[in-house]
Amino acid sequence: MILRDPVHGLVSFETPELSIVVELLQCPELQRLRRIRQLGLTSFAYPGADHTRFAHALGSAHVMTRFIARLQGLHDALPYWQRITTERTRDAVAAALLHDIGHGPFSHLFEEALPAGPKHEVWTTRIILDPSSSVHRTLVRHDPALPQRVAQLILGDHPLQFLAHTVSGMFDVDRCDYLLRDAHATGVSYGSFDLDWLLRSLRLGFAESTDASPPLAIDGDKGLPAIESFVLARLFMFQQVYFHKASRAAEWMLSRILIRLRQLLLDGDRTEAVPAALRSLLCTEEAALGDYLKLDDGALWGGIAQWAEHKDAILSDLCRRLYNRNLFKTYELFGPGRTAEAYETLLHIARDLAQQKGLDPEMYVGLDHATDVPFEDEKDSLRVIFPNGLSQAPADVSFVLRRLRGEKLERIRLIYPPEIRNELLGKASEQCL
Amino acid sequence: MILRDPVHGLVSFETPELSIVVELLQCPELQRLRRIRQLGLTSFAYPGADHTRFAHALGSAHVMTRFIARLQGLHDALPYWQRITTERTRDAVAAALLHDIGHGPFSHLFEEALPAGPKHEVWTTRIILDPSSSVHRTLVRHDPALPQRVAQLILGDHPLQFLAHTVSGMFDVDRCDYLLRDAHATGVSYGSFDLDWLLRSLRLGFAESTDASPPLAIDGDKGLPAIESFVLARLFMFQQVYFHKASRAAEWMLSRILIRLRQLLLDGDRTEAVPAALRSLLCTEEAALGDYLKLDDGALWGGIAQWAEHKDAILSDLCRRLYNRNLFKTYELFGPGRTAEAYETLLHIARDLAQQKGLDPEMYVGLDHATDVPFEDEKDSLRVIFPNGLSQAPADVSFVLRRLRGEKLERIRLIYPPEIRNELLGKASEQCL
Amino acid sequence: MILRDPVHGLVSFETPELSIVVELLQCPELQRLRRIRQLGLTSFAYPGADHTRFAHALGSAHVMTRFIARLQGLHDALPYWQRITTERTRDAVAAALLHDIGHGPFSHLFEEALPAGPKHEVWTTRIILDPSSSVHRTLVRHDPALPQRVAQLILGDHPLQFLAHTVSGMFDVDRCDYLLRDAHATGVSYGSFDLDWLLRSLRLGFAESTDASPPLAIDGDKGLPAIESFVLARLFMFQQVYFHKASRAAEWMLSRILIRLRQLLLDGDRTEAVPAALRSLLCTEEAALGDYLKLDDGALWGGIAQWAEHKDAILSDLCRRLYNRNLFKTYELFGPGRTAEAYETLLHIARDLAQQKGLDPEMYVGLDHATDVPFEDEKDSLRVIFPNGLSQAPADVSFVLRRLRGEKLERIRLIYPPEIRNELLGKASEQCL
Amino acid sequence: MILRDPVHGLVSFETPELSIVVELLQCPELQRLRRIRQLGLTSFAYPGADHTRFAHALGSAHVMTRFIARLQGLHDALPYWQRITTERTRDAVAAALLHDIGHGPFSHLFEEALPAGPKHEVWTTRIILDPSSSVHRTLVRHDPALPQRVAQLILGDHPLQFLAHTVSGMFDVDRCDYLLRDAHATGVSYGSFDLDWLLRSLRLGFAESTDASPPLAIDGDKGLPAIESFVLARLFMFQQVYFHKASRAAEWMLSRILIRLRQLLLDGDRTEAVPAALRSLLCTEEAALGDYLKLDDGALWGGIAQWAEHKDAILSDLCRRLYNRNLFKTYELFGPGRTAEAYETLLHIARDLAQQKGLDPEMYVGLDHATDVPFEDEKDSLRVIFPNGLSQAPADVSFVLRRLRGEKLERIRLIYPPEIRNELLGKASEQCL
Repeated sequence: MILRDPVHGLVSFETPELSIVVELLQCPELQRLRRIRQLGLTSFAYPGADHTRFAHALGSAHVMTRFIARLQGLHDALPYWQRITTERTRDAVAAALLHDIGHGPFSHLFEEALPAGPKHEVWTTRIILDPSSSVHRTLVRHDPALPQRVAQLILGDHPLQFLAHTVSGMFDVDRCDYLLRDAHATGVSYGSFDLDWLLRSLRLGFAESTDASPPLAIDGDKGLPAIESFVLARLFMFQQVYFHKASRAAEWMLSRILIRLRQLLLDGDRTEAVPAALRSLLCTEEAALGDYLKLDDGALWGGIAQWAEHKDAILSDLCRRLYNRNLFKTYELFGPGRTAEAYETLLHIARDLAQQKGLDPEMYVGLDHATDVPFEDEKDSLRVIFPNGLSQAPADVSFVLRRLRGEKLERIRLIYPPEIRNELLGKASEQCL
Repeated sequence: MILRDPVHGLVSFETPELSIVVELLQCPELQRLRRIRQLGLTSFAYPGADHTRFAHALGSAHVMTRFIARLQGLHDALPYWQRITTERTRDAVAAALLHDIGHGPFSHLFEEALPAGPKHEVWTTRIILDPSSSVHRTLVRHDPALPQRVAQLILGDHPLQFLAHTVSGMFDVDRCDYLLRDAHATGVSYGSFDLDWLLRSLRLGFAESTDASPPLAIDGDKGLPAIESFVLARLFMFQQVYFHKASRAAEWMLSRILIRLRQLLLDGDRTEAVPAALRSLLCTEEAALGDYLKLDDGALWGGIAQWAEHKDAILSDLCRRLYNRNLFKTYELFGPGRTAEAYETLLHIARDLAQQKGLDPEMYVGLDHATDVPFEDEKDSLRVIFPNGLSQAPADVSFVLRRLRGEKLERIRLIYPPEIRNELLGKASEQCL
Repeated sequence: MILRDPVHGLVSFETPELSIVVELLQCPELQRLRRIRQLGLTSFAYPGADHTRFAHALGSAHVMTRFIARLQGLHDALPYWQRITTERTRDAVAAALLHDIGHGPFSHLFEEALPAGPKHEVWTTRIILDPSSSVHRTLVRHDPALPQRVAQLILGDHPLQFLAHTVSGMFDVDRCDYLLRDAHATGVSYGSFDLDWLLRSLRLGFAESTDASPPLAIDGDKGLPAIESFVLARLFMFQQVYFHKASRAAEWMLSRILIRLRQLLLDGDRTEAVPAALRSLLCTEEAALGDYLKLDDGALWGGIAQWAEHKDAILSDLCRRLYNRNLFKTYELFGPGRTAEAYETLLHIARDLAQQKGLDPEMYVGLDHATDVPFEDEKDSLRVIFPNGLSQAPADVSFVLRRLRGEKLERIRLIYPPEIRNELLGKASEQCL
Repeated sequence: MILRDPVHGLVSFETPELSIVVELLQCPELQRLRRIRQLGLTSFAYPGADHTRFAHALGSAHVMTRFIARLQGLHDALPYWQRITTERTRDAVAAALLHDIGHGPFSHLFEEALPAGPKHEVWTTRIILDPSSSVHRTLVRHDPALPQRVAQLILGDHPLQFLAHTVSGMFDVDRCDYLLRDAHATGVSYGSFDLDWLLRSLRLGFAESTDASPPLAIDGDKGLPAIESFVLARLFMFQQVYFHKASRAAEWMLSRILIRLRQLLLDGDRTEAVPAALRSLLCTEEAALGDYLKLDDGALWGGIAQWAEHKDAILSDLCRRLYNRNLFKTYELFGPGRTAEAYETLLHIARDLAQQKGLDPEMYVGLDHATDVPFEDEKDSLRVIFPNGLSQAPADVSFVLRRLRGEKLERIRLIYPPEIRNELLGKASEQCL
């Protein structure tokens, strides 16, 4: 198989050990990812952000073939049992392709709006291990133990530490693909980094003992700026895209819709157009796998389109707004006045104003906290090594990373309906907020 | 309004005459375009081709602002009544934004699968002229005659010839945006061309009489290679993307699904999940505007998902295949053996083989004709002018275009199910096809 | 060795068969190419066109490593004697690196200004075969027959037809690199094409007999647009860059300078700052290799700087103009009036005007003919093959190339000094030129 | 004037206030910049880094036109005397074009090798103020006070603080152009940043008093990531390019050549091919302007080529090595062992080894210190402002910049000849260095 990808250019899976990619791509569980946007509601803020989980899965598998090629160029120094065999290649590429297969509609957003339900990682494991899934049957055809092995690998569990970290680590195929892909689709160039150079700088570090496998490492002489810019690319994408105020507001609205829908369902309302899995998740916090696999963005948008006619005024209003992109507004504090108390004050003011307009304060006003730690020096996830045998943590040798280690990025925003905008800004100004 | 577009970079609509863009973007009819992919089923062939009609509409409006800026830099030489006023700017940008608003699910594909129904241009006009549409009401707020004027302009009808041709002509905002956007999303770099240089080379030609407006023109000294590469970009996109075998096969399958569905509906079958507009279009070749506006890609995919369980074996089989991307194969002839007779022979062989496998020959085997004329020297759509006052048609001065003028690009392919592949290739080889 | 190239990204020569690149790069004859601009005086027209022959040589060697990797992926079907051995890899990469080593200052320009002297290909052969050159000694260290073999290969002479054509053919490493590099440096994006896809579409064609080697070929199914856009890229670069009026005018001026200098030297003038090789070439049409290797752009500019003070009024005036970029103007005819007679008339008018201003008509006015055939279907240089075994010439299957085959691109311009511009334009207009 | 720039695309200077650019470009002092590479000897490390000061000057003038356009879009709120008039536009663009006109051969390198001579800023001022320069005469034709005003502006001195800071400040046209240009030419993508977005985020801050002009500012809501990535781009370019070991080694060699040449000249040696300005600078630390303007890269390379035959063994050896790129090696310490003492030990070891090989220790071995402070929060050079009127220093609101403020980047390397490499590495390893 050979195809064109807008991010990586020419992508091919042609050798025998990569044939598993072609087979897995024929599974309905993977084709479902074509109907799930990678960035949820972000296209409300960035009109090009319509790329799908499917393209990301393919891209991750492609990046894995590049990691493998590089690691094979390095593995001659390893004991035999630590080398990248054709079986390990197959396993790693399958894991890369399947690592996100459990995502629901709108990706992360869906699980965040249903905090009590299973996370996407759980669904991923279920899909791979369930004997009825097409993915499972495809894996088993290669090796009965393969589903279990791939599921473990996705969780970062593998005898070869460095291989596990290519699937799940500080510098893994998931991040490599999504940063470049999200940057390409949004037009936010800051998300780019030099993948060629990073891969070329990849090394194997020093094993802690003779029966341990070595960690992933970067050549300190050539690779440091590459890994720095990789970390910074991720930081920028969080600041610019993943924490964008319009998509955060849309996401908050979606979560209110699901909360309201749940209330109605628990109250015995016979709302229509609720996909079985969603109904079950809302009412019982669980769902059958077969039902879950019928969920996709279109199914949820179809529901929202119908609930916009619902007799419950709150549900229908929220659905109508979201469907037609009439988004709530946000208000953020900067400078010395940016305190938790100030936000609480803002929240009270806004909720009062909403109530005065006849809007349910809980469903129309809230605080949105977005946080991320752009760079944590996870133990042994990636080392930096030097010609003379020195091995260091990235933060110990990098000018930039040393200054970012463990630092938390945090954005807090008041979310409120446009109807109260003028009064809110007036009162905020009065109180010097 | 200011936003990031992956194709054009920073896009802004901030001056008073562009405020109409911001208002129109709030109309549900425009928001619907977020749910319609620009290239229909092409993402089956190019996994990045998930961009929407919405992004294209925005991009076209942006390109129009650039055309206008350029034309205003040139219009001092014109009589007053031919200059680009703020009203004309507003009209042109609205036309650019709305030019494709009538598209149904999967864009062109939908109307091609329903050849007897209204074309998307008809729906575009209806949406703009219908007093109940939000788009109409927004236009009327500016000027009661605006809906009519914008609808005319989209059809290429305007007192200023050069302005009409920016909306619909050889070098118009639609093509400028879709070529760049489709190239960006598919990763097919051939679709790129130098928009900056083309705009900078834009001129106004010589009016035929004092009461006529001048045609659009290109500076012969600087702009010729730019317009040549624009034409060639389009040719390449047809060859590489729009005529790609996998998407043509998928499109053919979708048309069979709709044909079969129509048969079933006309036979009185009570198929579920058929959106009202689709049902009406299939049975009566017409639909109510309100129903039509509820159609989008998700609605059609939702139907296909359900019809995959339909009791009609043909409908459910075709739907299952398309839903899970089990596409039909294609066979194309090259070289001296590429004759109409050879294709007819192939068709008969394949239909026989299908029949032997118990597959309906009409619904499982067919010939697909794709044709385009990459470059027609449309009268006065674009002129090439020289410092000394010479005005020529592009094909008369261009080394490349002279050799392409009026030439037809044509791809014919047999479409058939994978089940008969081996037998078909065997028989084709026997017959030297 | 690993380095960054702005065109190809990461470039590396690390395997044993590529060590010859690292060794050759240390030769003074190759380092000299750092001091010769790839595009002569083109930076007068495109301020970014300062890239050197050295970068092009490196890039060509890199592209050759990519051709080799691709051909090795295809060569299993060949008889043993036709495969790409490590020796052939080394030979081909050396040939790619050295193919232009004989260029003089300002690249092609220098030999065009000295039509009776040896061409750069002759100097290339001399450098490789001369036992005193560092390049020769480096090659001999690998194999005493290597200089001869590399020199032959550069001329397109090798037992393996397909390998010869990667060095010198319709689709060779030289063109692959210079088109991309010149496009990158000038900012003329039309010169780009999709090298990745072209290489991936590369095939071996069908040998004419069992003891013949196969020709280079392109996969007709996937590669046709790629080779079309490659040919068109070259056409565009000729139109936009290589035939640019300002650089053509500058080149014409340089040729006049050398003509005048030759007259003076032959008349016994003791002009200073004439590099030995140049003096010898001007007076005897030959030069010693050691002297030739001391020529570079800086040496010629140094001479021009000094001749700008020469007592001969014509030489000093021309040198002063060129040194400070006071270029001659050009006048070109378009449309039906573009005839040989019209150009002759123009030439006479301009020469008369120059004479009236006291300027030597031969040294200040002339006609510049620039011609190229963008696409010739050279026999067997590249074939297009199809899955069913059909083999065709590109022009026989390509929509675009069929229409360009053998067509000649021609630009003729009058070159004249700015002093006579107004009178010339006036008279041209009078005569409707 | 309209031209193509590989960095900025289409560049034009067509309005009357920009005509000064076209006039200045005709001055020999500007044309000289075509013969001076922007990055000195960096093309020894990055083979694409052959771009010139001329392209950078043009690019800076272009970026200034973009700053001006943006500031004019903002200046309505200012009192009349603070607005950007056509005169101020002309002055600012002239300053941008001329800001680096005083550079000598190999740019910064030349003045670093001659620490006692005038800096390039001094030469810039001299060229502008000297009545005999063509630049001066061109400026005076516009306004007798213009040379003085432009010279002041280049030094960052202007009644309008914000205008001064576009020429010389944290975010100025010089940096904007050189970062993008150096990134483009070297292929080091980290040097890119989003100029469009940065300019769009540009604001005017709050003036300290009614008779003060406002500072340059960035919109805190939209522009923060843009300015962060601008600062980081510069940091990356220092790490990757400006501090590259091969170019630092080459630069150190050039400085030794000039030191040696100076010794010889002061000792009365009659070395040939020493340009008058260089001879004068070496012997007297001054030079006549006319002589200085004859210096360029070619003149210095011409000298080096000849000194390679000099009878002084040290001078000729160093020149031969540099001319043919036989560069000295570098050795750098990392990790906890990186102390000043360790470097001193290394230096002594290496000098001893050099002496044993008969090489002058001072001329063949040294320590190279490269330092830069990537981000200093210069007072008022750039502010960050928020919708509610808050004005902050970038480091006070930026997650990244807060952590970089005032931090010093430092690279120290031992520079030594390849002859002693093995012994040196052996001894360093013995001493755990």
